[in-house]
Amino acid sequence: MNIKITGTGSYIPSTIEKNEDFYNHEFLNANGSKINSTNEVIVKKFKAITGIQERRYIKPELTNSDIAFYAAEKAIADAKIDKESLDYIIVAHNYGDIKYNTEQSDTVPSIASRVKHLLQIKNPKCVGYDLLFGCPGWIQGLIQAKAFIDAGIAKRCLVIGSETLSRVIDKHDRDSMIYSDGAGAVIIEETTEEGGIISHNAATFALDEAHFIYFGETNKQEDSSHRKYIKMYGRKIYEFALNNVPLALKSCLEKSEYSINDVKKILIHQANEKMDEAIVERFYKLYDMKMPEGIMPMSINMLGNSSVATVPTLYDLILKGKLENQEIKKGDIIMFASVGAGMNINAIVYKH
Amino acid sequence: MNIKITGTGSYIPSTIEKNEDFYNHEFLNANGSKINSTNEVIVKKFKAITGIQERRYIKPELTNSDIAFYAAEKAIADAKIDKESLDYIIVAHNYGDIKYNTEQSDTVPSIASRVKHLLQIKNPKCVGYDLLFGCPGWIQGLIQAKAFIDAGIAKRCLVIGSETLSRVIDKHDRDSMIYSDGAGAVIIEETTEEGGIISHNAATFALDEAHFIYFGETNKQEDSSHRKYIKMYGRKIYEFALNNVPLALKSCLEKSEYSINDVKKILIHQANEKMDEAIVERFYKLYDMKMPEGIMPMSINMLGNSSVATVPTLYDLILKGKLENQEIKKGDIIMFASVGAGMNINAIVYKH
Repeated sequence: MNIKITGTGSYIPSTIEKNEDFYNHEFLNANGSKINSTNEVIVKKFKAITGIQERRYIKPELTNSDIAFYAAEKAIADAKIDKESLDYIIVAHNYGDIKYNTEQSDTVPSIASRVKHLLQIKNPKCVGYDLLFGCPGWIQGLIQAKAFIDAGIAKRCLVIGSETLSRVIDKHDRDSMIYSDGAGAVIIEETTEEGGIISHNAATFALDEAHFIYFGETNKQEDSSHRKYIKMYGRKIYEFALNNVPLALKSCLEKSEYSINDVKKILIHQANEKMDEAIVERFYKLYDMKMPEGIMPMSINMLGNSSVATVPTLYDLILKGKLENQEIKKGDIIMFASVGAGMNINAIVYKH
Repeated sequence: MNIKITGTGSYIPSTIEKNEDFYNHEFLNANGSKINSTNEVIVKKFKAITGIQERRYIKPELTNSDIAFYAAEKAIADAKIDKESLDYIIVAHNYGDIKYNTEQSDTVPSIASRVKHLLQIKNPKCVGYDLLFGCPGWIQGLIQAKAFIDAGIAKRCLVIGSETLSRVIDKHDRDSMIYSDGAGAVIIEETTEEGGIISHNAATFALDEAHFIYFGETNKQEDSSHRKYIKMYGRKIYEFALNNVPLALKSCLEKSEYSINDVKKILIHQANEKMDEAIVERFYKLYDMKMPEGIMPMSINMLGNSSVATVPTLYDLILKGKLENQEIKKGDIIMFASVGAGMNINAIVYKH
């Protein structure tokens, strides 16, 4: 028995926020001091490091569970399955539903229950729950779905990664330009077909790293609201990721019994282009190899970092022929990998 | 191979909020209208239905992850294990960390990462994630831990249920008297010892029931803050629970191949005393039996409804000899059961 993805779907929000749209923002350092550069220079540097030209925000009338539902609908249609046959709905996210212009996260009922309601699934044996695991949440959802199938308590699962970071960004923080909204979903199930998940890895580094990504106040010191926003120690994350993700990829690959030469694509969490490149370069360096051209499909330039949604969205775009010069063919060995808040890291070797 | 709980711990918050402490509250109907009773009468009726005399709140300086950590420390000590040997930390909750006198839920990093940090666990292979599944979250955590062990990706897990509902209650709503704070934790692991989890069940009813428990505004219409609080349609939940939980218990028991006469205790989510009694009575009625005396240990009178924490706390109290006239002996068949937001239901048949 193998465990394979049989359908994919994604939702790309319709509002495009370009880098130029940040020219009028008042960016400040974390201590509230002015940044000694014009916004044009700040944005240019930002683009050079992250690769991000534009990002997507959901419309004011939508919430996270709406876009999770849109992606789920497409994955179900793509897999050509009866939605009533699903055993699990697993939704990876981090901030729940936050309505436009409000600050409270709404997580009761779970986003999975809301999605199940919107899908109008009747079968009560289809169990829906939410998984919080930072940006690696969607890959972790796949690992959990595989465990349920291996354990004999599920045959077919819907795994969604959905996030609306536009609702938790501090407009006085340059890092706000990184964050984006999006949703990706897959159907994963037991099959006699060849391939599927070959090996996987997961880790949580919490001793020193737990609060590298955190909820903190605005850089604008005059703001006395105490409202909190997504915040990160970018330099620390960069070093952490470079030290640990290549090793995680290597140990996952070793578990799989495939060789580095078999790997056709690495779909890595779209966190930051320069960081992602450095990770994959270092991974190949562990094998005394240069990173092969085109091995690492990227969508960050147009879609930004939508947390849990980047990897399933990227996968869906490639399979649907929507990412230029990128394709995945039947039998290809690919890897999924992510790093994010927790700090969590995970990877999967997957035969398409 | 069996999968058993080898250690338990709980944290009971130190601040006691008595029913009399609500005498000065201004209780209102959901539409904002006055309630035609004195608070003394309201509280008396409340006590008669829910069984709750007092509940517990955490101190202002604490958050949910702190009390999850306290319970976890005790479970680890009770199991006499090396904390570095844990493969998973699963934290069931619903609202994350909400600091005193603030309204935002903080869920990044996950509560599991925070607990792992507080426990000072170094091993990165110990994976921590949060599970949102309404009040049945802790039982669902056990089911997931079992699946990971069955699938061969874990041997030993820490499963915590921790909630601070005092941070999301509307003081103008009579239902606010139900909610409480607390944390319970267990170590569950692979063992050659007899017993452990025999069978389990889970279900999500989201077609009509998804929003029976929800996040809504205060009953005080003059309040224009739009702040949201835990809210519920009590009557609908009561009917739903009575119609569905007894059947879930029965089907779980049938899977186990034990008989109703073997069941020594039913540890049910402490939601509401009258509702819990009606559920268990109806369960026995399915077998044409009367509910045996003492079959259903209760802690709600002194501890209120602390969501995901009620069942592990109750279990810990019994095992530690802290619940009068209640004990669980080696080899006893017991059942865990819960119902809550989602609407989710689950049950476990467990041999102690």
